Amino acid sequence: MTIRYPNGKLYTPNASVQKTEKKSKNKDLSFSNRGKTLEDEINEANDYYIKRRLAIIHKKPVPVQIVKVEYPSRSAAVIREAYFRTPSTTDYNGVWNGHYIDFDAKETASKTSFPLKNIHEHQMTHMQQVTEQNGVAFIIVRFSAYERYFIVPYEVLQKAWQAMENGDRKSIPFSIIEEEAYEIPTSYYPRIDYLPIIQQLIDAKCYGSESEEK
Amino acid sequence: MTIRYPNGKLYTPNASVQKTEKKSKNKDLSFSNRGKTLEDEINEANDYYIKRRLAIIHKKPVPVQIVKVEYPSRSAAVIREAYFRTPSTTDYNGVWNGHYIDFDAKETASKTSFPLKNIHEHQMTHMQQVTEQNGVAFIIVRFSAYERYFIVPYEVLQKAWQAMENGDRKSIPFSIIEEEAYEIPTSYYPRIDYLPIIQQLIDAKCYGSESEEK
Repeated sequence: MTIRYPNGKLYTPNASVQKTEKKSKNKDLSFSNRGKTLEDEINEANDYYIKRRLAIIHKKPVPVQIVKVEYPSRSAAVIREAYFRTPSTTDYNGVWNGHYIDFDAKETASKTSFPLKNIHEHQMTHMQQVTEQNGVAFIIVRFSAYERYFIVPYEVLQKAWQAMENGDRKSIPFSIIEEEAYEIPTSYYPRIDYLPIIQQLIDAKCYGSESEEK
Repeated sequence: MTIRYPNGKLYTPNASVQKTEKKSKNKDLSFSNRGKTLEDEINEANDYYIKRRLAIIHKKPVPVQIVKVEYPSRSAAVIREAYFRTPSTTDYNGVWNGHYIDFDAKETASKTSFPLKNIHEHQMTHMQQVTEQNGVAFIIVRFSAYERYFIVPYEVLQKAWQAMENGDRKSIPFSIIEEEAYEIPTSYYPRIDYLPIIQQLIDAKCYGSESEEK
């Protein structure tokens, strides 16, 4: 069954984590995508990290405004009227080795650039606030045409966003992504092992409480 | 309208943040509780911190399993069947000055102890995982009989939990809370200004990335 947000975006329930896991046990050694969404792939990686005690990163629940609930006797409460709300933050956050990690997942079919309309203004504000508090804020972008994945640090987004507000282009060229973002190599399981790439990001930026005095 | 979880616990929608804010503008200078829930009070503090760029801590949305959605033409999608799910983590997390902050809010009417049945086993597991990653994990407990608030570090909970599993008492005596937890003094706005108390906790435990090498 297909569930969509009011804006038409596909809603993927968390149940997909289990599905993904089952799939990964098949002896299919190709690195092919097998129709997973980016969210499936990130959930798979997060699940892998939690099981191996490498990092504790969760997807936040989809925010809904609950209007009407029924209480059938002897069974669980049923929500009978509720609406999707716009999330005020990014979708994923957690902790890794003392670092606060905060990100969103974005997919684009474009071959030439990442369109900034994929990011909401309130998400930019949230990532700005996180960066101010010495958290590590970024987005994971999948270029589906190339099956390539990048960690785009908030600073790169922010530069492009500001340029857009000054009347410049409304997207980040793929060449800039290749230059300034951090590519996540794909492998078998988890398909996108993004933690080592965050380490590169942290090393480059001197994130964390050590840099407070700077 | 009153909404309850399957276990009978009251559900408080996020809309209460706005309500709380409006109240705080009244010129009521008493420190009285005015019937707020602990969640209201924590949301008030978080809102205060975000506005002043002191910390970015949010309550996670209530997790629901969505089963049926309708798409009336020209209006927002309506969720027609959904169920409350058990959260797998704590309710609040975020970042403060490079520290990953993770906690839950618990209220007790008991005058003599904090009953451990207020905490779910999966929440203990989550706080353990967070602690391993150098995050700061705790619960905020309100003793409603006394109108007193405490930050109880995960380590204190864990000691009591282990004792319970070894057949010892199923609660933490109030005297131990007074001794080993950190009291949050109440004030006018925000009523529970818990950030400075977390600093005490961090100072005492040497949390954060500096302690990685130890």
